[in-house]
Amino acid sequence: MGKAKIRIPFFETSIKCYIYGDEVLKIAKAADAASVRHDVDVLFIAPYVDIRRIRESCPHLIILAPYMDTLRPGRGMADILPEALKEAGAQGVVINHCERPMTLSAIKKTIDRANELDMLSFVCADTIEEARAVAQMNPDIINPESSELIGSGQASDMSYVMEAIKAVKDINPGILVEQAAGITTAQQIYDFIMAGSEAAGSASGLLNSADPLALLDEMVSYVKKAREDLIKSGRLSI
Amino acid sequence: MGKAKIRIPFFETSIKCYIYGDEVLKIAKAADAASVRHDVDVLFIAPYVDIRRIRESCPHLIILAPYMDTLRPGRGMADILPEALKEAGAQGVVINHCERPMTLSAIKKTIDRANELDMLSFVCADTIEEARAVAQMNPDIINPESSELIGSGQASDMSYVMEAIKAVKDINPGILVEQAAGITTAQQIYDFIMAGSEAAGSASGLLNSADPLALLDEMVSYVKKAREDLIKSGRLSI
Amino acid sequence: MGKAKIRIPFFETSIKCYIYGDEVLKIAKAADAASVRHDVDVLFIAPYVDIRRIRESCPHLIILAPYMDTLRPGRGMADILPEALKEAGAQGVVINHCERPMTLSAIKKTIDRANELDMLSFVCADTIEEARAVAQMNPDIINPESSELIGSGQASDMSYVMEAIKAVKDINPGILVEQAAGITTAQQIYDFIMAGSEAAGSASGLLNSADPLALLDEMVSYVKKAREDLIKSGRLSI
Amino acid sequence: MGKAKIRIPFFETSIKCYIYGDEVLKIAKAADAASVRHDVDVLFIAPYVDIRRIRESCPHLIILAPYMDTLRPGRGMADILPEALKEAGAQGVVINHCERPMTLSAIKKTIDRANELDMLSFVCADTIEEARAVAQMNPDIINPESSELIGSGQASDMSYVMEAIKAVKDINPGILVEQAAGITTAQQIYDFIMAGSEAAGSASGLLNSADPLALLDEMVSYVKKAREDLIKSGRLSI
Repeated sequence: MGKAKIRIPFFETSIKCYIYGDEVLKIAKAADAASVRHDVDVLFIAPYVDIRRIRESCPHLIILAPYMDTLRPGRGMADILPEALKEAGAQGVVINHCERPMTLSAIKKTIDRANELDMLSFVCADTIEEARAVAQMNPDIINPESSELIGSGQASDMSYVMEAIKAVKDINPGILVEQAAGITTAQQIYDFIMAGSEAAGSASGLLNSADPLALLDEMVSYVKKAREDLIKSGRLSI
Repeated sequence: MGKAKIRIPFFETSIKCYIYGDEVLKIAKAADAASVRHDVDVLFIAPYVDIRRIRESCPHLIILAPYMDTLRPGRGMADILPEALKEAGAQGVVINHCERPMTLSAIKKTIDRANELDMLSFVCADTIEEARAVAQMNPDIINPESSELIGSGQASDMSYVMEAIKAVKDINPGILVEQAAGITTAQQIYDFIMAGSEAAGSASGLLNSADPLALLDEMVSYVKKAREDLIKSGRLSI
Repeated sequence: MGKAKIRIPFFETSIKCYIYGDEVLKIAKAADAASVRHDVDVLFIAPYVDIRRIRESCPHLIILAPYMDTLRPGRGMADILPEALKEAGAQGVVINHCERPMTLSAIKKTIDRANELDMLSFVCADTIEEARAVAQMNPDIINPESSELIGSGQASDMSYVMEAIKAVKDINPGILVEQAAGITTAQQIYDFIMAGSEAAGSASGLLNSADPLALLDEMVSYVKKAREDLIKSGRLSI
Repeated sequence: MGKAKIRIPFFETSIKCYIYGDEVLKIAKAADAASVRHDVDVLFIAPYVDIRRIRESCPHLIILAPYMDTLRPGRGMADILPEALKEAGAQGVVINHCERPMTLSAIKKTIDRANELDMLSFVCADTIEEARAVAQMNPDIINPESSELIGSGQASDMSYVMEAIKAVKDINPGILVEQAAGITTAQQIYDFIMAGSEAAGSASGLLNSADPLALLDEMVSYVKKAREDLIKSGRLSI
């Protein structure tokens, strides 16, 4: 069957633990609708308890789990079994988020398990050097962003972004690079993509805004706008 | 609203990570049916991804999550938010399972969070001394069993069981005590309850048996049988 | 040979990671001298690298390691082997400090290992309930203090102290109780002991003072003063 | 002052937790004597409690700590303060040993702290991919060996060794590569160095041998022999 195909540029969002229950579903449905409306792929990182429900209601989202263990079916109370995530509808997994840091060895094993199950691996890295290190393990997506910026409302500066993209691409040009730390406006989404990121995302910036649903739609529309401008300028072919 | 009321003696089961997906739902439905058939309360420890689905299909089960964090709504990628568990249908939480050992301080905080949300606290303890320690924090249920026996197919010996029950009850007679390690037969379920446990349970013993669904029903029926014999002998009043 | 005998009331101090190298030895020698001068037992929690050197220079201190693992001689890179600590001169070990929280099971195993090697177990607890839980495992000393106060310069209030002492003594009157969080003056040392603590201590309060060596001597002298007043009032017999 | 200079090829050994106390010093002195006798640099990974004593008795050894934290002087009970290690005599630190796995972010921060204090960084990696990842963070030494082999008495096969060396050198030829997993004979020491490793080492293989002191001397002598053969063949210049 293979992994979910992602069309670039794409948008990514996550509710982390800011909201729960029906509020999560509401945001997920809005993300799904924006994905359809603007014909842009949207990655949605969903809490474990909501993965199945979002899968059933939001057919266009590419759903990621926020973490997984690498055990195989067997004993293991409270472990996150990869097969169970996939069966519930997850198409990928976040690895090494700064709020869930992982050992080097666990990062490697989780990428391997994701590949085995045709799940996308989305690996976070805190510095340029860590982004380079992660690139050596060939995940599908790298999210190189300083943990100090996450949830801060302050985004990476553009020189950092350009350097991070180059660092990853020099090692493996096939790895997609996303920027998300501290993004609060649709214009930033556009700017980061125009600077060379295959994707941009927002979590706290979106949820803490005055009108999250409207901003979500606007952000996705700016991904579309960036895509059109990349095509016009010949930097992206259809 | 208050916590879920548990009628004693009760049965507890868990699929841990042995199975996933529709297989989990099948076991849950069988547990729900056995609960109705024998009029016995059944605690079902469900993987996070399955809690909501089991809640919707199995109205009689008392559903427990296998673990939770104690954060409050906010940032926290991959954390298990108590409010999200409760909203999805969990009525309680397992704390300090030997496959997910917790710090003393986290055990205390998780019991507090469970109380705050009217969720049952089900705390595991590896030795008699640890059972006594846990009893001082007044959880709803204590599961005192040697981690060496869990998943082994070998149950606690009866003198250990009696001592563990006495240790807990001497500190707080209101705490329910359950035995589950290494139980593989319905007769053991009956014996542990007749020895003074308010509950008995089985996970790997059940799932690794020749006919899990039949054994599950038999085990629940033996809880009923124990209840009737306890009533007859005047040790339990209706 | 048996565990080190502690005469009550006693004083405890620790340099944590505030200083290192010869500065540690200087404080240790001052503590040793104060112990002799005032005929008061002093527990000194020493970094691993300094235990042997302090042992050689400070014969009167009762030296504790800040943590230990429970492995037995064998493989284990970077683990803290109990036998190695003891051989280097440690006579006891701190367990479950809030800056090194431990699982309930590890607390129990570490107390057991300390007993096996005739090492004193000094267990920290963050709340009254946790102090009660720890008391069930019968360590030699319990240090019940809110982690929020540690390093804050603000001490526990007296009602908390009295309640903590009573909570521990109700379970096992043989366990010694110490207060140390946020203590910055010799008068507090005196007051906590007069309130019923067998010991009082200070780490950051001492090291951050204008003249640590003078304050250290004064604090130890106030332990002596408290001892004399306890004897005079008939609350302590010689 | 700068980092300790290491002359290649070199030998590395560690007692892990197999022995303690005076037995450690005996091995360290034998390693120091062998270093002088064969004019070969020897890295000795010492337990924290023994670092200072070994430093005082063994002037020729290059002493490494088995792990360190990255905190700066301040609060932190039981943390391993880098400055304290260095002051006690450690000239470097082992990072990410499979018995002390570290997060990617902690690996990076520890390499940075080691550089800041002119301490050698010796980083372990469990697979070729992880060795490549670590190489991106430019430590001084990489020890790429499968955790399954460590302590097993079975060494890496030569094709793995050659591939691991090439993987690291392709990224940064200045990083030294050592092989140590499962080495039990002096001949293996010679072979791994002749295959291109800058170093070889042995811990359990040495300590579990019939005559550890004799084998230690023999292993160091085989490093010398390999050095001479590398010089003769023109692969190493003096």
